[in-house]
Amino acid sequence: MTKIIKLMQKDKDLEPFFEPRSVAIIGASPHFHKPNGRPVQSLLSSGYEGEIYPVNPNYRSIENLKCYPSIKDIPYPVELAIVVIPAAGVLPALYQCAEKGVKGAVVITSGFSETGEEGRLLENKMSELARQSGMRIMGPNCMGMINNLNGLWASFAQLVIQKEHFYERRFSLISQSGFFGAFIYRMAGQDKLAFSHFASVGNQADLDFTDFLAYMVVDPQVEIISGYIEGLKDGGRFLAVAREALLRQRPFVVMKVGRTAAGARAASSHTGSLAGIDKIHDAAFKQAGIIRAGTLEKFLAAITLFAAKRRPSGPRAAIISTSGGGGVILSDECEEHDLDVVELSTETRHELDKVLPFFASSANPVDLTAQIMTEPDLLLKCFKLVEADPNVDMIIVSLYVSFELAKTVTDTMVELYKQVKKPVLAIGYPFGDIAEVEKMLDRMRSVGIPVVKAADNGIWAISRLLEWMKKTKTITRPDGVLPGVECETALQIFRPLPKNRKYLTEFQAGAVLRAYGIDIPEAGLAYSSTEAVQIAERIGFPVVLKIQSPDILHKTDVGGLVLDLKNPEEVEDAYRRICADIARRAPEANLEGMLVQKMLPPGREVIVGVKQDAVFGPVVMFGAGGIFVEVLKDVSFRVAPLTRGDASDMVREIHGYPLLAGIRGDNPADIAALEKILLKVSRLAMELKDEIEEMDINPLLVFDDGKGVAAADALITRKING
Amino acid sequence: MTKIIKLMQKDKDLEPFFEPRSVAIIGASPHFHKPNGRPVQSLLSSGYEGEIYPVNPNYRSIENLKCYPSIKDIPYPVELAIVVIPAAGVLPALYQCAEKGVKGAVVITSGFSETGEEGRLLENKMSELARQSGMRIMGPNCMGMINNLNGLWASFAQLVIQKEHFYERRFSLISQSGFFGAFIYRMAGQDKLAFSHFASVGNQADLDFTDFLAYMVVDPQVEIISGYIEGLKDGGRFLAVAREALLRQRPFVVMKVGRTAAGARAASSHTGSLAGIDKIHDAAFKQAGIIRAGTLEKFLAAITLFAAKRRPSGPRAAIISTSGGGGVILSDECEEHDLDVVELSTETRHELDKVLPFFASSANPVDLTAQIMTEPDLLLKCFKLVEADPNVDMIIVSLYVSFELAKTVTDTMVELYKQVKKPVLAIGYPFGDIAEVEKMLDRMRSVGIPVVKAADNGIWAISRLLEWMKKTKTITRPDGVLPGVECETALQIFRPLPKNRKYLTEFQAGAVLRAYGIDIPEAGLAYSSTEAVQIAERIGFPVVLKIQSPDILHKTDVGGLVLDLKNPEEVEDAYRRICADIARRAPEANLEGMLVQKMLPPGREVIVGVKQDAVFGPVVMFGAGGIFVEVLKDVSFRVAPLTRGDASDMVREIHGYPLLAGIRGDNPADIAALEKILLKVSRLAMELKDEIEEMDINPLLVFDDGKGVAAADALITRKING
Repeated sequence: MTKIIKLMQKDKDLEPFFEPRSVAIIGASPHFHKPNGRPVQSLLSSGYEGEIYPVNPNYRSIENLKCYPSIKDIPYPVELAIVVIPAAGVLPALYQCAEKGVKGAVVITSGFSETGEEGRLLENKMSELARQSGMRIMGPNCMGMINNLNGLWASFAQLVIQKEHFYERRFSLISQSGFFGAFIYRMAGQDKLAFSHFASVGNQADLDFTDFLAYMVVDPQVEIISGYIEGLKDGGRFLAVAREALLRQRPFVVMKVGRTAAGARAASSHTGSLAGIDKIHDAAFKQAGIIRAGTLEKFLAAITLFAAKRRPSGPRAAIISTSGGGGVILSDECEEHDLDVVELSTETRHELDKVLPFFASSANPVDLTAQIMTEPDLLLKCFKLVEADPNVDMIIVSLYVSFELAKTVTDTMVELYKQVKKPVLAIGYPFGDIAEVEKMLDRMRSVGIPVVKAADNGIWAISRLLEWMKKTKTITRPDGVLPGVECETALQIFRPLPKNRKYLTEFQAGAVLRAYGIDIPEAGLAYSSTEAVQIAERIGFPVVLKIQSPDILHKTDVGGLVLDLKNPEEVEDAYRRICADIARRAPEANLEGMLVQKMLPPGREVIVGVKQDAVFGPVVMFGAGGIFVEVLKDVSFRVAPLTRGDASDMVREIHGYPLLAGIRGDNPADIAALEKILLKVSRLAMELKDEIEEMDINPLLVFDDGKGVAAADALITRKING
Repeated sequence: MTKIIKLMQKDKDLEPFFEPRSVAIIGASPHFHKPNGRPVQSLLSSGYEGEIYPVNPNYRSIENLKCYPSIKDIPYPVELAIVVIPAAGVLPALYQCAEKGVKGAVVITSGFSETGEEGRLLENKMSELARQSGMRIMGPNCMGMINNLNGLWASFAQLVIQKEHFYERRFSLISQSGFFGAFIYRMAGQDKLAFSHFASVGNQADLDFTDFLAYMVVDPQVEIISGYIEGLKDGGRFLAVAREALLRQRPFVVMKVGRTAAGARAASSHTGSLAGIDKIHDAAFKQAGIIRAGTLEKFLAAITLFAAKRRPSGPRAAIISTSGGGGVILSDECEEHDLDVVELSTETRHELDKVLPFFASSANPVDLTAQIMTEPDLLLKCFKLVEADPNVDMIIVSLYVSFELAKTVTDTMVELYKQVKKPVLAIGYPFGDIAEVEKMLDRMRSVGIPVVKAADNGIWAISRLLEWMKKTKTITRPDGVLPGVECETALQIFRPLPKNRKYLTEFQAGAVLRAYGIDIPEAGLAYSSTEAVQIAERIGFPVVLKIQSPDILHKTDVGGLVLDLKNPEEVEDAYRRICADIARRAPEANLEGMLVQKMLPPGREVIVGVKQDAVFGPVVMFGAGGIFVEVLKDVSFRVAPLTRGDASDMVREIHGYPLLAGIRGDNPADIAALEKILLKVSRLAMELKDEIEEMDINPLLVFDDGKGVAAADALITRKING
C-alpha cells in the first residue's frame, strides 16, 4: 500500500508539464511554419495564460515577446522548457535548464537512441541529469504534449486546437508513437472526440509511458485515459498503476500493437512454451481492467462510449430501427457480445402496437419501418415507450438507413435525448453525401449521444463498458506480504546448487513447494533398492518410484517412473527395471537417486506454472491437465502478484472448468483449495523471481471439495545468468 | 450429376427477367416521383434498348410511349411484366400476363403473405399460376431487379444508375430484404463498387433466392455473386447450387443475418443439442466455399477484394507504410488472419537500404517514414524493389497517414500500378477533409487498386480470398449413389416399429448401422442370464451387458451397463445386478432384453452423429469423444451429402484432432477408416432422412492406423410425425 501511494506521489513531478506558470521555448523561431516556430505560435493562439519566453540568440523578439539569448538570461523563474534545437546542443541546454531551476523539459529534438549507440549514450546522460537534478525530462524524439484545457501546447505537431468537446467526460491520450498519436488525435477529432491531454512520450530517456499514466490516474481533470503502446518496459509497474486507475474508476483504453514481436523463445516447460507474448499482455490487461482495442476503429468506438455521460446499468438493450436489416444486424452483434436483446414488457408491446403500423414489429428490435417518413413523431412515441420499459437498460438506434430517414431520426433524437434518462447509442452509417452525413452525426454528438459507424465496433464498445463497470466492483489490490521464513527456507535449497545447474530434481523442487505450504506427497530419496523398500515401508504402500536427474526432464519418456507399487517385491523389481531402462535409454544422465513417493489417491489433474516474462516479470499459469494443456492449450495466465479475484478468474476462464465444477453428477473439486495454491504460487513466484526462470507443477491433483490438492510432480528451471 | 445439370438448366427461366427484349409496366404512371412512375422513368434513362410498353387505362401515352389499357391490348409479344398496381388487382393482371404469353413477371406490389393468412393464400395462387403456366414470378413485395449492363431497371427503388465501374470483375447482389439490399447497393456505390445485377427477391412466392443464385452461377456476365440472406428455405438445394458456383470459380459472398433466430430446441442427443442454428450455417457455408461476412463493412471489403482483377498467388505479404504505426497495425492483422509478413530477400533489403534514409526500416513492414514528403519518388523506388522480390505475393500499402502523405502515396500508386504485375491493396483511412479523401481514394480505385478503409476488414478479406482460391482447387461434387440394399435392409428395421416409438434400442440401432457397413461388435439379445451366458460363450469373452429399453437413453445413469465380463460367472452376476438396479432406478421402463456384446479393445473415442436441420436437412456431426464433446463442445458439422474433402476437413478441424493424429509418440489412429465411416453415415442420413430425426454413435472407437473403427454404442431417435 505504501508502495502504491509512492508510485502515485511521484506524479507530482509532471505538474510542471501540464500546468506550468511559465514556458521557455529553447530554439524558438519566428518562422511559424517550421517545427521550431510552431510551439510559440501554438502557445500564442491556444489561450495559454502563463508566461512565454522564447529563447534564441538570433532574435530579439518573436511576435511581441522578448526573445532571450539563453535560458540563463531569463530574469524570471521558468517551470517548463520546450527544447527544439539540434541534437548536438540539447544536453548543454538541459544542463542550463537544470541550473536555472526548470522543473520539466520537453525534448522534441530527435537524433538520439533511435539512431544508434552514440545517441543512447547521450540519452543515458539525460536520465542521469534528471535523477541528479530532479528536473524531469520528456522525450527526446517526441511530438511533445498538449493540455487542451489551459492551452499548454508544448508540441510541434500541426494539430487542430480542439475547443469543441462534444462528450461530457474528458479523456487523454498517451502515445508511444508521435506520428501515430497525432494521427489518432486527428481521426478522433473527426468523430468530435477532443482529447483534453495528449502526450507523445518519445524515447522515454527519463519519463516513460507509465509515468504519464500515473499522472493521469490522479489528475482530477482527466476522466478517461487512452494509450497507444508499442512496447512496455516495466510491465509490473505499468500494471500496478493501471490497477490503480481501475480502483479509482478511471477507464484505461489501450491500443497495443506488435502482437508478433519477439517470437516465443524455446522453452523447456509447458508454462514457458504456452505463453505467447500477446497472451500475457491480454491476461495482464484483463487483470487490471484495461480495455484493449484491437483496431483503431475499436479504439475510437471505446473512447466514444466511455466518454458519454450516461452508462447502462445492465446489459439489456432495446434496438429501434427503421429497417428490418438494421435491426437484425445490431441484434446479431448484441448476441455476439453478450448483450441481452430483451423481451419488452407486455405493456410496452401493447402500447407500441397502438402506435405502430400493422406491418411494423413491436418485438425487440422494434422496427418502425419507413412509415416514419410520413409520420415523423412515430419515433418519438415509440422511443418514450421503450425508454420507460423497466426491462430496458439502454436504447440502441440504428442508422443503417438512407440520409432522409436518418435525418428524421436525428431530428427526433436531438430533441428527445435530454428529456429521457437512459443511455442511448446511435450505430450505423447512413447512405448519402458524406459531408452532409457527418454534419448530421455531429448534431447527434453535440447533445451527447455517442455515435459509432460500424455495428461490430459499437456493440463491442458497449460490452467493454459493461465489463469494465463490473470489474470496478470486484477489483482489489493484491495483499502485500513481506517475504518471511518460506522464502528463506526455499533459498536454502537454491544456494548450495552448482552455478550452472539449470534444473532442480523433483525432490528439490518438492522442497521448494513445501516451503510455501504447497502439499506434496510424503517421500524419501533412495540410493539402493533396499533403501527404497525401507522408505516405502516407512511412508506406507502404495508408492511411486521416480528417477532423479537434472538431465531427465520427462521421466516417462525414458522409463524413469513406475506407479502404484503395492509391496516390497514390486518396489525392488521396479527399482531394478528403472535402473536398467535408464542405463539403456539415457546412459549419459547424471543420476541423483530414486524418489520414493507415496502414491496419491486419484484426483482431477491440473497444471500450475510460473514463468518470468520479459515485460511483466513473474507470471502464473493455470490449466486443466494432461491432454487439455498439450492438445488444446487450454490455459489462463495472470501476472503476479495475484489477487483473490485473479485466482478465481483464472480457474474459471479455462474451457475445462466444468470438469472441476463437476459434470454429469460428479462431485465438485476443491476449487477453494486450488485458488489458495495459486496465491501461494504467486507469492513463490514473486519472492523467488531471481532464482526461478520457469516452474511447472504438473500434475497438481485437485481432490473432491474439502479434500484439498497435492502436487504430484514439479519441474523447476533455474534462472542462470549469462 | 444429372440432377445438378437440371438444377442449373432451370435457370433459363430467368433470362426473360435479366435479358428481356420487351417490358410491360402494368400500372405505369407519368408521375415519375411515384413508385409506379419510377420504372418507366428508369427504363427511359438507363439506356435499355428493348421495347417499353406502359399499361394503364388512365393514360394514352407516357413520355412519348404509347400507353395500353391492358396487357392484352399490346399487339406485340411481351417478355417481362413489371406489376405496380394495388394488391387486389395483381392476380387478375398476372392471369392476363400468362394468357398473353409473358415469360416473367416482377410483382413489386406489397400486401401479401407479410400481412397475414389472406395474403398467403393469394401468394399460393401466384405460385400455382407459375407452375401451371410456366410464367415465372418474382416477388411479390419486392424492390424488383436491375441489370446495369443493359439498362433493364425493373425496380421502383431510387438507386443511382451506376455507370462507373471501377473494378475489373463484375458482381451481382441478391437480397432477401428490399430496403437493406438497396442500402447495400448504395453504400457499395460510395466505395465505387457497382453491382452489375441486383435482385430483391421479396416474398419468394415462386422464384426464390436459390433460383437467382443458380441463374448467376451460369450467367457468363456475372463473375462474383453476393447475397443478403435473412433465412433460407431449402438449404440442401441452396448448398448444391453454391457448391456449383465454387466448382465454376464464382465467388459467392454472403451476409447472413439472424444468428439468434429460433433458439435451439430441446434435443435428446448430443448432435441435436450441439447444433446451434448458426453453427450449421457456418458449416454449410464453409462446405461450399461461401464467403460469409459478419458485418456490412466486411461484406463490402470482400466484394472489393474479389472484384479486383489481380489475385495473390500465395499468402506472403509485403507491407509498405510511411509511419511505423500503420505498418505494425497491418502486420498485426496479417498475423491474426494467417497472412505471412515475409522476410524480404537479402538482395531486396540490400537494395532498399541504398535508397531509404538511415532511420527508415527496410525490414517488412518497410517504413518509408515521412521522408517521402521531401523525396516523393522514394515510394516508387521501394515499391519496385519489393514487387520484384520473389518472396512476395502481394503488396499492402498503408493509408494510415495524413492527407498530404496519402496524396503523395496516391500519386505514385496511380502511376505505378499498371507497370507492375503483383496485386496491390491499399488499406487505411487518411486524415483530412472527408470529401477530398474520398476523391483521392477514388483515384486509386479507378486504376483498379482495391481500397479498404479498416485494417481488420481489409486483411480479413484477403485471407478469405486466399482461402476461397484454395477451396476451388479441392472442391468436388458428392458421389451420387442410388439407394440400394443397405437402405432396404435398414427400412425393414423401422417398418415393424409401433408408430409412436421414438427411440430404437441399441440392438436395433446397431442393425441399422450394420446395414450400412459400419462395424459394430458382435452381439446377441438375451432374455435370461442363461441366455446371456450362452451368447457370451458363442461370441467369446470378455463381453459387455447392456439393458435394452426405448425408455432408457443413458444406460450408465441407471446402472444399465456393465463392462469387461470375463467369464460365465461374471456375466450371470452382472445380469442380476443390472436387473436389480433397473427395477429400483427405472421401474417404469419397458425392457426389451439384455444386449450381450463383445467387449471392444481400447481405442480412441469419438462421436459421430446425425440430425435433421430445419433448413439444410440431414447434417453429420463429428467430435472427439467424452469430455471433449461434453465440456468443450469440440465438434464439427457438415451438411449431407458429404464429399471426401468434407469428411477430411471435419475430422481435422476439431481441436482434439492431434489426439487422433497421435501426440507424444502415440501411433496415429485409423483416420482413413474414420473418414469412410463419415461418408457411410452421410449416406445413411440422406437415405433414411424420413425415418431418423437424430442419431449418435457414441462412442465410435477409432483403433490404431490400419485397424479400423467400431461403433461401441448408438442411439437413434425416430422422426415421428405429429
